[in-house]
Amino acid sequence: MSKLNFANKNDQSGFENFDDCGIYKISDTQSIIQTVDFFTPIVDDPYTFGQIAAANSLSDIYAMGGTPLFALNIVAFPTQELSLNILSDILQGGQDKCAEANINILGGHSIKDKTPKFGLAVTGLINNQNIIRNNTPELNDVIILTKPIGTGIIATAVKKGVAKDSDSANAIKLMSTLNSDLTTIASKIKINACTDVTGYGLIGHLNEMCNNTKLSAKINFSDIPIIDNVINLAKNDIIPGGTKNNLKFYNSNISFHNSICEYQKLILSDAQTSGGLLISTSYEDSLILIDYLNQNSIYKSKLIGEFINKTDKNILIDNE
Amino acid sequence: MSKLNFANKNDQSGFENFDDCGIYKISDTQSIIQTVDFFTPIVDDPYTFGQIAAANSLSDIYAMGGTPLFALNIVAFPTQELSLNILSDILQGGQDKCAEANINILGGHSIKDKTPKFGLAVTGLINNQNIIRNNTPELNDVIILTKPIGTGIIATAVKKGVAKDSDSANAIKLMSTLNSDLTTIASKIKINACTDVTGYGLIGHLNEMCNNTKLSAKINFSDIPIIDNVINLAKNDIIPGGTKNNLKFYNSNISFHNSICEYQKLILSDAQTSGGLLISTSYEDSLILIDYLNQNSIYKSKLIGEFINKTDKNILIDNE
Repeated sequence: MSKLNFANKNDQSGFENFDDCGIYKISDTQSIIQTVDFFTPIVDDPYTFGQIAAANSLSDIYAMGGTPLFALNIVAFPTQELSLNILSDILQGGQDKCAEANINILGGHSIKDKTPKFGLAVTGLINNQNIIRNNTPELNDVIILTKPIGTGIIATAVKKGVAKDSDSANAIKLMSTLNSDLTTIASKIKINACTDVTGYGLIGHLNEMCNNTKLSAKINFSDIPIIDNVINLAKNDIIPGGTKNNLKFYNSNISFHNSICEYQKLILSDAQTSGGLLISTSYEDSLILIDYLNQNSIYKSKLIGEFINKTDKNILIDNE
Repeated sequence: MSKLNFANKNDQSGFENFDDCGIYKISDTQSIIQTVDFFTPIVDDPYTFGQIAAANSLSDIYAMGGTPLFALNIVAFPTQELSLNILSDILQGGQDKCAEANINILGGHSIKDKTPKFGLAVTGLINNQNIIRNNTPELNDVIILTKPIGTGIIATAVKKGVAKDSDSANAIKLMSTLNSDLTTIASKIKINACTDVTGYGLIGHLNEMCNNTKLSAKINFSDIPIIDNVINLAKNDIIPGGTKNNLKFYNSNISFHNSICEYQKLILSDAQTSGGLLISTSYEDSLILIDYLNQNSIYKSKLIGEFINKTDKNILIDNE
């Protein structure tokens, strides 16, 4: 869900902190959480696009510690210009990804449009005590990232015809992989904060985690998982516009170690689609968490830094 | 919500009957109901467009007998080409209409797009015993329509420059008027079926109410409320393409009285935006219902027909 900051009269429904979902308390014990997300195709294959869009939409529910219940399709399609088989493939990709997340798609809305667009409104239910906010890390928490970064840079490389087949395959695999449902593990350990890495890049979403807190995030560049060949592409200035904009926008909130070069800063700013979760928990709990995550994902979760007392910048990037 | 018919493994979440919302049972007593709807501007004024889009989205919740809880914005906007003040006005219109419905907008998703689009994902909660389906009318039920029809014809007249100022004002007023929350009255009488009149026109939505039933809808043309000047415009062939398509599509399901002319058939087929509710209830209960509706709306609800044993057509149009 993108972060439109509207006036909100209802405190219980909190949108002030730019959480990943809208939250609505329906009883003393439970809340409905909900997100909407959709975008234009980012890959050529319609079925794969449907899978990625669905995985991306579902991610906001997982980032709040919720379990998705059901979804509705959001569809725009040029019915005159493109074969309906393409639409059917997009929808099938979305449906199959939802099936993998154990939910059904219960309908949706479609309009005719020049450019195809697809995404989901996803709804979940969560116990009020288990809601994981994005800006409630605790001092000395470690920071875990569950997927490598660099999908934006690879997408640009594909567009420019300079990506290897394996680059494209790696990015597609990553974007269409569901993030982890934290419900089970969150009942065993204390997850203090979580968000997912999407359009604002790792630094943008880390910055969100520090907003309105007394903490800064201290990250070690060399601990950050990066998709194969992304460093090479970034060195060759294969960088999406959105990624450059992220760095410009967040630069003043970050203290980069002297040894961090421009291309490394850009990798940290890379706009992701369906990126991993950023999770804040104590070091002790992180051992249990990483073990759990690694049993349930093809990607190795990595400890990339920690939350320290607020400095003059929200984010400090080391390079040890 | 438009009617995309997807496979659905989960019986409890019924989408087979093209209900106005997705329904998800969360306990023995309660279900979440949800709809998504959005479209391109249909009026020049951005604030008014926002109001109409919101009223239209909310309508699906009312049509199921639900009470809306909260909404998320769905936004597409050409940020380079159009002033952000326009977007702000659209959103304010949506927000004010939601405030009128006593709900908050808890976030949303926005994308850059050539053509502006706006709508809402609206979520409600409903007691399982109070869910009103659209195709469960009972024999001898009367049919009530809560708003006059003809907004599509007026919109076309506005585009062609042949509408009077009052025509435009009438259509805008109608489209931005919230449908009635049936929760209170539904606890006092038995509402057997309900839907809202939107893109498929009065005949299309009536046809839906008859689908998979043993009933046909018998309607009296002269009892149907029609917005001022719509008859005159229709006589002069001011008819939207969608309206003509509706008549073509549903024609074989309808038996029109000999005296019904082509322009009258087209009025009955007129694609509506944010049209009224079509409600099926016993004649006795209809007296209580109409009284309630008329106390809570600026539009007079009208008894337009009844459900009879199935004939060879789903809909019979009399002209008495």
